[in-house]
Amino acid sequence: MNVIVYGYGLMGKKVAQAVRDNEKMDLVGIVSPVFDEKIDENMYSSLEEVNEKVDAIIDFSHPNNLEDILKFGIKNHCALVIATTGFNDQQKLHIEEASSQIPIFQSYNTSFGVSMLTKIVKSVAKEFYEQGYDIEIIEKHHNQKIDAPSGTAKLLYDVIHEDIDETKEVYDRSQVHHKREKNEVGIQSVRAGTIFGEHTVLFAGHDEIIEVKHTALSKDVFVQGAISACNAIVDKENGLFTLKNLY
Amino acid sequence: MNVIVYGYGLMGKKVAQAVRDNEKMDLVGIVSPVFDEKIDENMYSSLEEVNEKVDAIIDFSHPNNLEDILKFGIKNHCALVIATTGFNDQQKLHIEEASSQIPIFQSYNTSFGVSMLTKIVKSVAKEFYEQGYDIEIIEKHHNQKIDAPSGTAKLLYDVIHEDIDETKEVYDRSQVHHKREKNEVGIQSVRAGTIFGEHTVLFAGHDEIIEVKHTALSKDVFVQGAISACNAIVDKENGLFTLKNLY
Amino acid sequence: MNVIVYGYGLMGKKVAQAVRDNEKMDLVGIVSPVFDEKIDENMYSSLEEVNEKVDAIIDFSHPNNLEDILKFGIKNHCALVIATTGFNDQQKLHIEEASSQIPIFQSYNTSFGVSMLTKIVKSVAKEFYEQGYDIEIIEKHHNQKIDAPSGTAKLLYDVIHEDIDETKEVYDRSQVHHKREKNEVGIQSVRAGTIFGEHTVLFAGHDEIIEVKHTALSKDVFVQGAISACNAIVDKENGLFTLKNLY
Amino acid sequence: MNVIVYGYGLMGKKVAQAVRDNEKMDLVGIVSPVFDEKIDENMYSSLEEVNEKVDAIIDFSHPNNLEDILKFGIKNHCALVIATTGFNDQQKLHIEEASSQIPIFQSYNTSFGVSMLTKIVKSVAKEFYEQGYDIEIIEKHHNQKIDAPSGTAKLLYDVIHEDIDETKEVYDRSQVHHKREKNEVGIQSVRAGTIFGEHTVLFAGHDEIIEVKHTALSKDVFVQGAISACNAIVDKENGLFTLKNLY
Repeated sequence: MNVIVYGYGLMGKKVAQAVRDNEKMDLVGIVSPVFDEKIDENMYSSLEEVNEKVDAIIDFSHPNNLEDILKFGIKNHCALVIATTGFNDQQKLHIEEASSQIPIFQSYNTSFGVSMLTKIVKSVAKEFYEQGYDIEIIEKHHNQKIDAPSGTAKLLYDVIHEDIDETKEVYDRSQVHHKREKNEVGIQSVRAGTIFGEHTVLFAGHDEIIEVKHTALSKDVFVQGAISACNAIVDKENGLFTLKNLY
Repeated sequence: MNVIVYGYGLMGKKVAQAVRDNEKMDLVGIVSPVFDEKIDENMYSSLEEVNEKVDAIIDFSHPNNLEDILKFGIKNHCALVIATTGFNDQQKLHIEEASSQIPIFQSYNTSFGVSMLTKIVKSVAKEFYEQGYDIEIIEKHHNQKIDAPSGTAKLLYDVIHEDIDETKEVYDRSQVHHKREKNEVGIQSVRAGTIFGEHTVLFAGHDEIIEVKHTALSKDVFVQGAISACNAIVDKENGLFTLKNLY
Repeated sequence: MNVIVYGYGLMGKKVAQAVRDNEKMDLVGIVSPVFDEKIDENMYSSLEEVNEKVDAIIDFSHPNNLEDILKFGIKNHCALVIATTGFNDQQKLHIEEASSQIPIFQSYNTSFGVSMLTKIVKSVAKEFYEQGYDIEIIEKHHNQKIDAPSGTAKLLYDVIHEDIDETKEVYDRSQVHHKREKNEVGIQSVRAGTIFGEHTVLFAGHDEIIEVKHTALSKDVFVQGAISACNAIVDKENGLFTLKNLY
Repeated sequence: MNVIVYGYGLMGKKVAQAVRDNEKMDLVGIVSPVFDEKIDENMYSSLEEVNEKVDAIIDFSHPNNLEDILKFGIKNHCALVIATTGFNDQQKLHIEEASSQIPIFQSYNTSFGVSMLTKIVKSVAKEFYEQGYDIEIIEKHHNQKIDAPSGTAKLLYDVIHEDIDETKEVYDRSQVHHKREKNEVGIQSVRAGTIFGEHTVLFAGHDEIIEVKHTALSKDVFVQGAISACNAIVDKENGLFTLKNLY
């Protein structure tokens, strides 16, 4: 499989190396406006310069590059793994529209552990809720992260909301002065130090608490997750995939 | 349903009150060698004094009373909820033998939350293990608890072991001097203060940790669990039940 | 010492019993607009009805009763333990003004454990901050709690802010789109089930996290805290006290 | 300052690079029986080959090299940072004896965060104990770690034991059948995945728990800790130092 890595920051470098190390993948080249070192593969400043056959693009860059990526993907019918975060609503809409013509996987935190967390939450959330348990989500990330809550926290909420129609998200309890309503799902974001990523879903009933927690101990888990997702997405039909429906 | 409560300590009193408050249950009487107060129902020093029809006995007393309970249960074919802890191997064998003639539920921590914890662990342990994850169990209880590990920790280990044949329990890593083997499941017991009960099952792989944790915030959850178990066990065939197969 | 308990809800009942059980204290009476049972002591609907000598009032009632309490306290120069929560800014100002004439302790979570948590945070916050660590606070309480963040979380923030002038509180990261600034102290509130109270102060630097966490396992700890505070406040000069300066 | 790094495994390589990057340090050479790559500095198979002036040795190798290191250190009066773990009692005695002639710092986990954890525990352990709180220690490390409990857990216990004479360590509660005694300090070791190191000291009293927890998110923190310790130890008198008395 011919792969292009988009982005050559910290994560782009790691994922490029992982593509080189993967025996099913060939690294066709890397796209980045700037390179702080010489590499052995093709160095592109945009996808417009690419003439090789490309099966998949893995993107760990910046929301600004989205149009370049979608345009190339549709034109060449190649699969996309979009692991960049911080898209606005319009950009998300563009991704969804493009997914009618190509298979797109969009998620930052693509690790096996997070896919298991998602699976557990899906399997128990409704039963807890029906037994009168409250559901809350807490996530922690490093102090360089711009968006809040994290994409994974939103994914976890979506998984809950899909099975329990009436839930609604609550981000800030300091501005209201009333008791929690049963259908509220509080989502709290902590930003500190170099925390790689921690997600907890908490179910609390009468004098009992169940917590399901995922902790990432390095960025490697996201790199490996992107590689796995790339291997999975190339064989899919057109459509938009996340951890909920990829595997 | 006619119910007898065996034991009139802290837990016995709470469960007696819960039986009184339960509209499906009638409290026929309480068995205890000592009573520190007068009660409205029959006060027995052993089951031999009981002449009423009894559908179920809920036992929160002492291992020493086991023979009295099993004998009565078999003779009158009544269901048993045995929530006493600290039985020796011979006593456990007696319980198993008796269960060929009557339905017996045996478990201390019978709460909804623990049954959900058990369910989650059962649904993911094997997949984690096959992906190379290590499994460990940590439990915390108050400083008056005599046995370690807790019955619930053992139950959680059993659930894991049932699906992964090759696992073995490890209690003390301080006496050995070698690397952890893949099939070891460490079980650690913390005893401190008045902790009602905390159980964590930890799955750790390459740079990822998933933890599933149950916390009890009062003894009420065990009382309610015993009441629910009693309601469920009276309709069962003969046999030995735990949270794994009761609901 | 002659004590009046103000409030006869769940906490009022518990604290009344603790006053009865305390050998240094005499329960002069209880003030409450409503009583759901007959008690042995005087039952008042407001402090205006009280003619006995009163050394201290312990208040677990409602912000609306504040003026009644402050007026009586100043007139009779009796010490106040105000454990009610949810005062508005004007009411807080009244408490502060009144404290120029009588000793007032104001804090809900008055337990020994929280005073130790406060002490630890005070002893290390500045050093962590100067070493480049970020500071965040997370608190969890039951779903009936109206105010957020908790009074204890605010107290912990105050302790930090006193020693690090430049900090500012942040409650909601979902509405901003920028990196965390060093002087931000995020305060996150989780509301679920019957959680009695959990407070964590997190310090995170480069690849290291230190967390200091307090968990309450029952409301009894707040009752005992109020009793201890009452014993301490009666011997104090006029002034406003919290856990930071009471002991 | 002239520094030799002993050991060229994963940690040896990282610490060698950190010495190169430190402007106060010159890397004289590296000692290792095997090198899997060529390096720019001197490569020694033992300290006997070294003729340069050496101010300090940082050891991340194997207990077997201890005699080589102590002999060289005493002969050339150079300071030692011994970060290797798993010494037996006789070896520890040798270290102590040698420290009468040279300054030696011995500790694996030498990070700023762990030194703060130690400081917090020292400042509160006795007061908690005297108030009737129980103390327990839990540590978690990766599945390649041979010794248990960790050196840091032992250090934390030592800090507690120094101030509370009567405490004793307990490693395995599964083999005894009695209630916890007040002076027991349970030390539990979890081994799983690639956990870099987690240490929790728990204080639990009547319905209150205080936990102080340190989490390492990479091995870098131990490298930086060794560099800091090396900078501090070269100016010390002869003697044996740990995090308790180095800074």
